[in-house]
Amino acid sequence: MTHQPFFYDVTLRDGNQALKKPWNQSEKEIIFNQLVSLGVQGIEIGFPASSDMDFDSCQKLASMAPENVVVSVLARAVENDIVKAAEAVRHAHKPRIHTFIAMNPLGLEHVLKKDIHEVTDIAIRAVRKAKELLPNGQVEFSVEHFGDCRDNLPDVINAIEKVVEAGADVVNLPNTVERFRPLEFVQMVEQVHKRIGGKAIVSVHCHNDLGMATATTVESFFHGASQLETTLNGLGERAGNTDMYQVAVALHNMDVKMPLNMRLFDKTAQMVSEMSHVPIWEKMPIIGGDVLAHRSGIHQDGSNKTKGLKKGQYIAFDPALVGRDDGEYLGFTSQSGKSALREIYENAGYPITLKETEMLMPFAKKMAEQKGELSIEDCDKLYREHLCAVAGPYQYGAFDRIQQGRYVLTYTENGQKKETVGYGYGPVEACVHGLCSLGVAISILDYQQKMLRGEDKEASEAIATIKLAQGNKECICHAIDRSTTQVSIKAIFNGLNQLEKQ
Amino acid sequence: MTHQPFFYDVTLRDGNQALKKPWNQSEKEIIFNQLVSLGVQGIEIGFPASSDMDFDSCQKLASMAPENVVVSVLARAVENDIVKAAEAVRHAHKPRIHTFIAMNPLGLEHVLKKDIHEVTDIAIRAVRKAKELLPNGQVEFSVEHFGDCRDNLPDVINAIEKVVEAGADVVNLPNTVERFRPLEFVQMVEQVHKRIGGKAIVSVHCHNDLGMATATTVESFFHGASQLETTLNGLGERAGNTDMYQVAVALHNMDVKMPLNMRLFDKTAQMVSEMSHVPIWEKMPIIGGDVLAHRSGIHQDGSNKTKGLKKGQYIAFDPALVGRDDGEYLGFTSQSGKSALREIYENAGYPITLKETEMLMPFAKKMAEQKGELSIEDCDKLYREHLCAVAGPYQYGAFDRIQQGRYVLTYTENGQKKETVGYGYGPVEACVHGLCSLGVAISILDYQQKMLRGEDKEASEAIATIKLAQGNKECICHAIDRSTTQVSIKAIFNGLNQLEKQ
Repeated sequence: MTHQPFFYDVTLRDGNQALKKPWNQSEKEIIFNQLVSLGVQGIEIGFPASSDMDFDSCQKLASMAPENVVVSVLARAVENDIVKAAEAVRHAHKPRIHTFIAMNPLGLEHVLKKDIHEVTDIAIRAVRKAKELLPNGQVEFSVEHFGDCRDNLPDVINAIEKVVEAGADVVNLPNTVERFRPLEFVQMVEQVHKRIGGKAIVSVHCHNDLGMATATTVESFFHGASQLETTLNGLGERAGNTDMYQVAVALHNMDVKMPLNMRLFDKTAQMVSEMSHVPIWEKMPIIGGDVLAHRSGIHQDGSNKTKGLKKGQYIAFDPALVGRDDGEYLGFTSQSGKSALREIYENAGYPITLKETEMLMPFAKKMAEQKGELSIEDCDKLYREHLCAVAGPYQYGAFDRIQQGRYVLTYTENGQKKETVGYGYGPVEACVHGLCSLGVAISILDYQQKMLRGEDKEASEAIATIKLAQGNKECICHAIDRSTTQVSIKAIFNGLNQLEKQ
Repeated sequence: MTHQPFFYDVTLRDGNQALKKPWNQSEKEIIFNQLVSLGVQGIEIGFPASSDMDFDSCQKLASMAPENVVVSVLARAVENDIVKAAEAVRHAHKPRIHTFIAMNPLGLEHVLKKDIHEVTDIAIRAVRKAKELLPNGQVEFSVEHFGDCRDNLPDVINAIEKVVEAGADVVNLPNTVERFRPLEFVQMVEQVHKRIGGKAIVSVHCHNDLGMATATTVESFFHGASQLETTLNGLGERAGNTDMYQVAVALHNMDVKMPLNMRLFDKTAQMVSEMSHVPIWEKMPIIGGDVLAHRSGIHQDGSNKTKGLKKGQYIAFDPALVGRDDGEYLGFTSQSGKSALREIYENAGYPITLKETEMLMPFAKKMAEQKGELSIEDCDKLYREHLCAVAGPYQYGAFDRIQQGRYVLTYTENGQKKETVGYGYGPVEACVHGLCSLGVAISILDYQQKMLRGEDKEASEAIATIKLAQGNKECICHAIDRSTTQVSIKAIFNGLNQLEKQ
């Protein structure tokens, strides 16, 4: 790429004006500071002529701006607006006045009731006035409803050229209402860029009425636009403005060097949602609560097989890139596969083998058919029922320490009561010894015990996993218990019953 | 356009598999019937090999399909899946088996661990098997992860050509994970179309990971794809599949003849949201609760000035097109203008003039700055306070009928108590007569009274609007009261105080 994107955020203007409860000054300052932290290069802070409150707010925000951030205010192409705009923004290090007028045939005829020449003259006067009042600042001029100028595009491009000659530094091309397909808009942007590129910066500002604002913005970047106007969380009039996060990740994926601190995206999105009272849709790209979930078996398997690689088979970006430390998420429903189930257990700290997962699958599927996505509590229940309570001839009774290294074990075998004393350095060794003395010749091949996570639980539990051998038979067995001694002995008995079935 | 879109819906497969609680059979049937009502030409109903439940469900749905709808089931490119698929779908009038395998370098290397030639052979065998088992049906073949095949595209296109030769009727090109910019994908689609167009139908199936699925689908249509795979409400894995409503409205706006019954969109969206437990995001294009709202003054003015025209200045489509009878909506916030305020009053049945609206503006702005978007109750409060309780020298006391056509009126003027008897056919005439007899020479130029809407109110109220003249002064005055007599007299006193100020 020969050009770099200049992110110009309009959350405080276009986003704010569409809120049911627009932000007060202190809220605006929080958003402003967050935009600065994100590394946004330009921030449109308000519309000073719209109210005294807005004027005061713009003055305050302009004075807060760091040296390297362009701060801009909106003004209709009328003298009073421009005078107020200049007054409100002049104390910023890099002030900008953003003035605009519509040039689409519909707007000319029905809203402005003027022809393109009259409107061009108004635009030129506005740009000159802004330049005059803000000699050290920039002037941005927007052709409002540029996306609706298909039928008078040559006239509009002529007008744009004159406005640039009058001093506009940035020409913004809004898709004020998204009516047509992206490529039409993009080709129009390309035509403007061909005429004025080099003399002024070309910018796009897309609304999302048909759901294509991100695409239109991204493609415009590759066709000459370098200033991209976006908002946080896609806020803005109607279906909103182009979402900053989506554009940034898409450009990043296309190997465009990103000026933004993308790791703040997730946190920013949560904050903006809370402050705007506009919830984050669970399926909203990049930031939605559910967009890292995989629920079908095929997706879950592919996701697992490409885990840890630079690129995942079923994920468009590394969640950590946008500050989502939760990462990909496998939900288990009736449509899900064993990869998901196994990963859910492993993530929650339950040791489980592939074979055990396969054994649990029909029970998990049945439960999911009845109640939808399984919670971790549901999975815990299945684990205890099917892996930690193995039925069979052996039933554990009690295991007590008599003295150091000496334990008494009671159990039943096919209903017949048994009692034995086992010796060993620890309880597991003693239990094995006791069983052997009654002819149950087992050995421990591997042993693991750990605390089961589960912060809400009143008392913590231990989970034991033992690899048991008897003759040439082997098995893995588990138990969960609050006692770190009992848990091992119970696991052994689960193992005895399993071995019996082989 | 030389081709028409074929809408192929995957809500029951891709949508359902991503739900936290996938649908049961009766829910699937409701969705299926709704898709038929919408006029969708193809419906993918499930994945028979994934579970017995899914198999049974597919058999049932296939048997319900009307004659003109293609009914399709998913199958991996393995014999067992294809056998089950054929069995599940064979009783449909127009059955189709949709088989697939990944061909992207990442999938070949890490998931399938096979090269493109081996995978091509698998695909060919799968397509042949499907053709053999379903001689009167169609076979659709998907290159899973087509969007990730930039680096081996020539190989993939060769593979596609062989699969078409083996009998595939439809070649579907999924953007299984949206990773790159739309035009790259679209150009790849175009290349496939150039090679196999005429021999097979080209289809696209886009996911929305970066928020560009609608654009990618729409542009693909204009570059050779005629089958468009979409879902209701954009349901689907992660950030979902391409949303049907957005694609349809975008194509409609591009003058493409629409096979769908778009007027059912809004109702369908509400139904799907309820059944899927996935809420409709308030800013979701086309169907979102908030996307017909205009909150800034400039937008509200433009919207009003183009109301009733074929095209609105700030709306991408006629809301009625998609069954939204609520239409455009003007919300009043601190960013809003007088057009909005006036329209809110008029819509709620409050007579108001432009001048009165201007008078209310500062109070409305102040209230909105404090509490956000004004409710109709807030507007009612402002109306009563500022238009129905005009302070001034005249204070109404009482007005009672003594006998037919004879009334006694008491009031104060600058604190001084007055009493008069007025004669008239009705109370208004009698009041005017009574005032005249005390030297307050007024006349009624216009008179209107109506019931104030407000269904929750305990008792209905009347609102009176009177045009009053005194000498060469005129005014409009209002009052609200439960008595249809009192309301008129109170309006006259509001008018007297107004005239006094002129």
